[in-house]
Amino acid sequence: MKTIKNESKIVVIGGGTGSFSVLSGIKKYFNNITALVSMADDGGSTGQLRDEYGVLPAGDVRQCLVALSKSPKIRDLFNYRFEDGGLNGHSFGNLFLTALEKTTGNFREGIELASQILRVRGVVEPITLDKVVLAIKDGTSIIRHEHNIDIRKFKCLRPEIWLEPKPRPNPAAIEAIKKAKIIIIAPGDLYTSLGAALVVPNIGAALKKSRARKIYICNLINKPGQTDGFSPIDYAEELERMAGQQFIDVVLYNNRRPSRELLEKYADDGELPVRADSQERRAAAHFQMISANLIDKRISSKSPSDKLKRSFIRHNPDLIAHNILREA
Amino acid sequence: MKTIKNESKIVVIGGGTGSFSVLSGIKKYFNNITALVSMADDGGSTGQLRDEYGVLPAGDVRQCLVALSKSPKIRDLFNYRFEDGGLNGHSFGNLFLTALEKTTGNFREGIELASQILRVRGVVEPITLDKVVLAIKDGTSIIRHEHNIDIRKFKCLRPEIWLEPKPRPNPAAIEAIKKAKIIIIAPGDLYTSLGAALVVPNIGAALKKSRARKIYICNLINKPGQTDGFSPIDYAEELERMAGQQFIDVVLYNNRRPSRELLEKYADDGELPVRADSQERRAAAHFQMISANLIDKRISSKSPSDKLKRSFIRHNPDLIAHNILREA
Repeated sequence: MKTIKNESKIVVIGGGTGSFSVLSGIKKYFNNITALVSMADDGGSTGQLRDEYGVLPAGDVRQCLVALSKSPKIRDLFNYRFEDGGLNGHSFGNLFLTALEKTTGNFREGIELASQILRVRGVVEPITLDKVVLAIKDGTSIIRHEHNIDIRKFKCLRPEIWLEPKPRPNPAAIEAIKKAKIIIIAPGDLYTSLGAALVVPNIGAALKKSRARKIYICNLINKPGQTDGFSPIDYAEELERMAGQQFIDVVLYNNRRPSRELLEKYADDGELPVRADSQERRAAAHFQMISANLIDKRISSKSPSDKLKRSFIRHNPDLIAHNILREA
Repeated sequence: MKTIKNESKIVVIGGGTGSFSVLSGIKKYFNNITALVSMADDGGSTGQLRDEYGVLPAGDVRQCLVALSKSPKIRDLFNYRFEDGGLNGHSFGNLFLTALEKTTGNFREGIELASQILRVRGVVEPITLDKVVLAIKDGTSIIRHEHNIDIRKFKCLRPEIWLEPKPRPNPAAIEAIKKAKIIIIAPGDLYTSLGAALVVPNIGAALKKSRARKIYICNLINKPGQTDGFSPIDYAEELERMAGQQFIDVVLYNNRRPSRELLEKYADDGELPVRADSQERRAAAHFQMISANLIDKRISSKSPSDKLKRSFIRHNPDLIAHNILREA
């Protein structure tokens, strides 16, 4: 039986991994999806391609394209990572987007062609088309480059954050936000993924102005050195601070406790789960607070790609989708 | 106006560049094309990928796929060659076929998927699916590897030639030869491209047995140190020696003299044009000898990809196609 899909325009804002989960879930239920992708990534395969070929960052765009693809074989191809040799560590999809940008001379046109090839249901748009570097002010130090910030233990929490040079938003991103009925801020690294998207000028204002229902899906685990002890409201308030606007309508956060065994494994690396806000703080918040079971132990531990410990506690795409459907 | 296409099954056997010219020409007039590709290439980007990832040689297959593609943008993408950096010299299409072989676990399935993506009109089949190394016996020395043989000046002309380990033919290649109405042996390096295809066991016997009209399109320029002074009949006889069968029906060779200026440029590198056989030898040959203008000066000198001197004297795809149509 074919599911009748919700026709509402839905926009997902984020980086790679978190957007991947959200998009993988909602694509079964929504027909009109746009993923807006932060563009500050400069680590790993993506960073090397940026350095060597002067292209825009491919990795997060690739993950969103793959999430929305209807073609399993080409999806595998895009996710394929070369091992050893001169191509070691490069994901094929990143090479694909790089070569497309080089031959079409235009990253967006490259994404469009990749979308055709991957049979993507939906649209993937960079949040900006300018080449940018992420920067933060941590105490008195200015730290530049996403890959440096990603691994940093902050001296002062809640750092100032910006992009250099000051970018213009992708007009198609502004348009998508304007026309959306639902906007999701995906889970993801608060500063290096979500912040990098929200500090693009005019994105915050567009979010504020949009009549869409804006739902933030909170992370499950705090990032040591960056968001230690953060609650869902702490995350949401940081997002609004970076966007320069109070725009969030709903904070959706997990209420299911992972197994003690998993929690202990995470705790060994100083990684602790996000704990709910107090009743009082929730009641005082300007956004609606919705808690739900967002993780699924069975799926997490069965997946063949779960080789890394840190993959074990993560959002279940279907549970996310069901909760979003309720808001649609 | 849409050309009504010839429905005859047509098979083209060769390596990369020569097959590319033939396929680019005939695809406008024929509807049912199969390219059979020699699989001994181990130089350049292709060789590096074979070494590092244990895959089958991609380069010649890529050229045939590109020749038959209906999608100009994806064609450009496949031909894109990375410059500088870690990917320096790799053609994107080669990376594509390598990643496909790795993810599908099967080179033919990879070609099939690539054919869909490139919207290929026709079929591209490796002449063998075994991993092979080309070898020749030159006097008392045995030389292995296509890229070594390619640059060698032979001590003794007409060397013994074989593949190691002894490969099986791709059954789909045998089937295509059996069912063909026309079989073209494309121009190309006599030993490292055409020989590498024809010495695959059973290919010669299948060619001999097939009721197709078998047309060899002769090279324009002799290869210094390998085919110096060769005439069209010398080439054709070498092909038959390597195939172990007298199978050629027609030798199609060029009768138009390139400009003196171009000939002088080539002569500087010891590269001299193939000269026609004498009237007597032609009359005595067991195949039909057809001469025609097969080069087109205007197109050759205008093409933007003609940066290399050696690209200047080459077959014109349309003139090849017109001459093949006459035989169909």
